[in-house]
Amino acid sequence: MATTIALPAPADFHVHLRQGDLSKLVTPHVRKGGFHLAYVMPNLKPPITTVSQALEYKSTLESIDPSVDYLMTLYLSPDLTPEEVRKAKDAGIVGVKSYPRGVTTNSDSGIESYEIYYPVFEIMQEVGMVLNLHGEVPSDPATNTHILNAEPTFLPHLEAIHKAFPKLRIVLEHATTRAAVDMVKSLGPTVGCTITAHHLALTVDDWAGQSWNFCKPVAKYPDDREALREVVREGHPRFFLGSDSAPHPPHTKATSTPQSACAAGVYTSPILLPLVAHLLEDFGALDKLEGFVGGFGRAFYGRQLHGTHAEKQTLLRKVVGQKVEDQWSLGEQSVVPFWAGKELRWELVE
Amino acid sequence: MATTIALPAPADFHVHLRQGDLSKLVTPHVRKGGFHLAYVMPNLKPPITTVSQALEYKSTLESIDPSVDYLMTLYLSPDLTPEEVRKAKDAGIVGVKSYPRGVTTNSDSGIESYEIYYPVFEIMQEVGMVLNLHGEVPSDPATNTHILNAEPTFLPHLEAIHKAFPKLRIVLEHATTRAAVDMVKSLGPTVGCTITAHHLALTVDDWAGQSWNFCKPVAKYPDDREALREVVREGHPRFFLGSDSAPHPPHTKATSTPQSACAAGVYTSPILLPLVAHLLEDFGALDKLEGFVGGFGRAFYGRQLHGTHAEKQTLLRKVVGQKVEDQWSLGEQSVVPFWAGKELRWELVE
Repeated sequence: MATTIALPAPADFHVHLRQGDLSKLVTPHVRKGGFHLAYVMPNLKPPITTVSQALEYKSTLESIDPSVDYLMTLYLSPDLTPEEVRKAKDAGIVGVKSYPRGVTTNSDSGIESYEIYYPVFEIMQEVGMVLNLHGEVPSDPATNTHILNAEPTFLPHLEAIHKAFPKLRIVLEHATTRAAVDMVKSLGPTVGCTITAHHLALTVDDWAGQSWNFCKPVAKYPDDREALREVVREGHPRFFLGSDSAPHPPHTKATSTPQSACAAGVYTSPILLPLVAHLLEDFGALDKLEGFVGGFGRAFYGRQLHGTHAEKQTLLRKVVGQKVEDQWSLGEQSVVPFWAGKELRWELVE
Repeated sequence: MATTIALPAPADFHVHLRQGDLSKLVTPHVRKGGFHLAYVMPNLKPPITTVSQALEYKSTLESIDPSVDYLMTLYLSPDLTPEEVRKAKDAGIVGVKSYPRGVTTNSDSGIESYEIYYPVFEIMQEVGMVLNLHGEVPSDPATNTHILNAEPTFLPHLEAIHKAFPKLRIVLEHATTRAAVDMVKSLGPTVGCTITAHHLALTVDDWAGQSWNFCKPVAKYPDDREALREVVREGHPRFFLGSDSAPHPPHTKATSTPQSACAAGVYTSPILLPLVAHLLEDFGALDKLEGFVGGFGRAFYGRQLHGTHAEKQTLLRKVVGQKVEDQWSLGEQSVVPFWAGKELRWELVE
């Protein structure tokens, strides 16, 4: 049994770094959790829809922690023009994120149909931008569409976009179902898929009445979790870590009133690499850790390590039960991590 | 359009009246909610497993509010002997409630298999006691059993018990799925089914991150809710109201910590009849209200009205948006009702 593992510059291909004071608290948690690359989501208030906003945001993040490679994204909306996409590519922005309207945090500006974006997708394909899809349709009781089948119901959209733009790199974000795994596998080499740490751990039973485990997409059935574990264990190169780590003020996670629900999101950043090692070890996939937390995603995004980057090693070592901290704070901001108070069997070596 | 409705002594065939100070607060809410009969659940701490406990509990409830007809039940456990069942029948106890182990509030003493209870069921059938089934199996990731399919997975047990004891009256409690409705319909006239008010209102989307709507069994998919509404609209005489109204201290409903979930249960007693009228009107079943809130259940249980009981009328009248109170308190006890702050279109006439 290995007791230490050295990993070259782990990469988190889906993370929420927020803005303002909360951002100052959580941005350094990328490195704290063992990661050197953060693929940054654009669902701020207001959403990041222009190149100048994205560059300003990147500059803010770099001023908080310059040691991380921030890959920036734009929020897909009708305001995004083909010209702006070209400009984005030239400015080093990597992807465009699509949110269905109203299904997750700050997605009120999200999209309702995809064909109106085909001119934008055309240019993205041409210049080599990545399309990041939040793969859920909104709930609709009239068609028996709900949060448990929102992802399977979305998959035909993924398939249609891929068929229309076979060279466009698309990432289905935070997959939670066997149907999604099967669909991504069935598509071509330009279609990748992120998987979060918490969806490798949770099922629907875990978030029933337990708001700290509540996120969108919600964790699904045990067989769906098994499909995620299987594809990680298989070492499939188009499936890689995107934590979807999403901090919320603790009171918005802990307490609901009859009039308002808890915030959706699970926060894993500060414990991410030890957590992923712990989980992969549990289901017999520790030998796929390096590919899952960096290699596969870097290859998909064309961000392979070379030169000085290749020297950025992160070292994990086995421990006898390291308790996850209850909370991290900075000024008036605080965040509670996933698995607070539980024990992890791996820790980072400073 | 009717603007008043007179109902003969409405009956709630599944209610939790708790014990101690909480019981003093919630027991009077049966009448406050418009009901004259309460079929009382036995999952206290400790559970009601003997005739003497049940009679003492009944006497306590009558001392709190003597105006309600309390039908008492025993908690099925290996300690329940055929002799105790005969004694229970003689003492006027009506039913025996079976809880699968660990699936809901105070069910740690629940059962794991049914055949060991066949000698008890035999006597119950003989003397005419009713078997009340909490129809869920415990979750088991190895067999992909979870809180969303726990009820459909239970149904073969219901079918098997009915086939073994065709004359035993059985009630599948708080049905939440189309599968359960179909199963109960397919079985003989000795099998009834309760439906709660909140399961006519909620789906899985409503309790995701919203602990006030979290109960066991959890509300299911829109199509399941539609099946419940359909069978009520149909006026099927073996489907009737059992509110499963389950009060919990507000802090246990409002707040979860990373280490502990919120309590499961929705509290409808004090608004029950206006709420049911509101819901049935919404889905076009107001003409079935009288059967659903009393007639059908009374016929199934052989508790038809006669003599003075027939005079106990409850009168509902249409209102322009009557807000549900935020909370009811007594001493240090308080409870928050379902739909707190929302408007109901019906109210009780004193």
